[in-house]
Amino acid sequence: MRWKLTIEYDGAPFKGWQRQKHAVSVQEIIEQAIFTRFAETVTLHVAGRTDSGVHALQQIAHFDIARTFRPNELLSALNSALYPHPIVILQADKVSENFHARFSAIERRYVYRILNRIAPPAIEANKILHVKYPLDIAAMNDAAICLCGTHDFSAFRAKNCQAKSPIKTIYACGFTTPKESLFPDIHEFYIHANSFLYHQVRNIIGTLIEIGRGKRAVADMQAILESKKRVNAGATAPPDGLYLTKIIYPDGS
Amino acid sequence: MRWKLTIEYDGAPFKGWQRQKHAVSVQEIIEQAIFTRFAETVTLHVAGRTDSGVHALQQIAHFDIARTFRPNELLSALNSALYPHPIVILQADKVSENFHARFSAIERRYVYRILNRIAPPAIEANKILHVKYPLDIAAMNDAAICLCGTHDFSAFRAKNCQAKSPIKTIYACGFTTPKESLFPDIHEFYIHANSFLYHQVRNIIGTLIEIGRGKRAVADMQAILESKKRVNAGATAPPDGLYLTKIIYPDGS
Repeated sequence: MRWKLTIEYDGAPFKGWQRQKHAVSVQEIIEQAIFTRFAETVTLHVAGRTDSGVHALQQIAHFDIARTFRPNELLSALNSALYPHPIVILQADKVSENFHARFSAIERRYVYRILNRIAPPAIEANKILHVKYPLDIAAMNDAAICLCGTHDFSAFRAKNCQAKSPIKTIYACGFTTPKESLFPDIHEFYIHANSFLYHQVRNIIGTLIEIGRGKRAVADMQAILESKKRVNAGATAPPDGLYLTKIIYPDGS
Repeated sequence: MRWKLTIEYDGAPFKGWQRQKHAVSVQEIIEQAIFTRFAETVTLHVAGRTDSGVHALQQIAHFDIARTFRPNELLSALNSALYPHPIVILQADKVSENFHARFSAIERRYVYRILNRIAPPAIEANKILHVKYPLDIAAMNDAAICLCGTHDFSAFRAKNCQAKSPIKTIYACGFTTPKESLFPDIHEFYIHANSFLYHQVRNIIGTLIEIGRGKRAVADMQAILESKKRVNAGATAPPDGLYLTKIIYPDGS
């Protein structure tokens, strides 16, 4: 039986999604929870291998298991085994053997959250990037437009990126400022693509923040992209503000 | 010199605002920070004495201090002294001796946040009330209408409440569901009043949740209010979802 899990997690305490020898990963905690409850060793295959400290609102992973479950048995058993780790299973669906969390996915969506005020966050520490300098969000939004479409994103690619090609397609990106939000001074940068290079979103954000602070011009973004040189782009923004929000599959799920 | 502080805090690690002998309070931490930086012992007077575990987005407090400050000196000195406690000073304003954080305040606003889905929160643990049973938010909203206006709120008053009178005036209350929010399945109950009785908001929420689950009828809310008997209302909801959002003063600040 193949199962698809929809997963929410706070990335702060973990060294990213992927299992590692000397650090605790989200993958390891969930695989352990499955073993604890059902005494089967499984391997999770994930849609978006989030980096250390990056959060997920709807991460998708699949695994195969011999055992059968009553409705909701898997969901509630896993959530009680995962507690008190900040990882929860939002949904567990039986899927066909043709479904693959990573290879079936056609689109990944991320949001990067920025708190733009003098005081640091008390309530959302580790959940948002704090920028104390005034940001020109309209300029950052204008600068981001040139990223849409299919481009060689070498300028925003981390050195140790393992992707075969630096060419990715951005379907949409830009800033929104949540309306009627309880928490003011928050700006969200959304970016949707077929897939992403290692540190791509954080390198884009690091560059946009320099534009927002007036250290670079709006037109620089296009020039940086076209240069295809990482050295021309800004610093890598911290993981705190980054959320994997949605994975899209061909059936629209 | 009298100073007015606008304060944000995560209430989870504290035994409420008020200084206590055997537990750590928000008041104690801020008074200590002032002493650490400026070697003066001050007493903070607060607008809303939040209870253990209750959060604040814009709490207001004032204190008197002999020393004078350069612009922003107080703000940055306090925030660095407060770190890593989840308490930040958003603003520090010099005010006249006529200003009193508690007695000058004419309105207090709170929001109670509810996450209504099967899975518990991974990202907002301690920051929201998780209700796994389906809630009829429209029914809860209808039930809350009767609270608006001036009433005897004895039915929602905790036993050890020290207020002289159980009569309070609710200026507005109801549910909103944030639009375009990154975090789905969240409902917010806002309530504005001249002031509140001890546990009043949490007792109202506890009762509304029973109505939302269909355990009580919408019309019961009015009957409970009129009975003036605490025993007729629902259980006290946990502090996790409660936020003091705003204090209003006569000058509109």
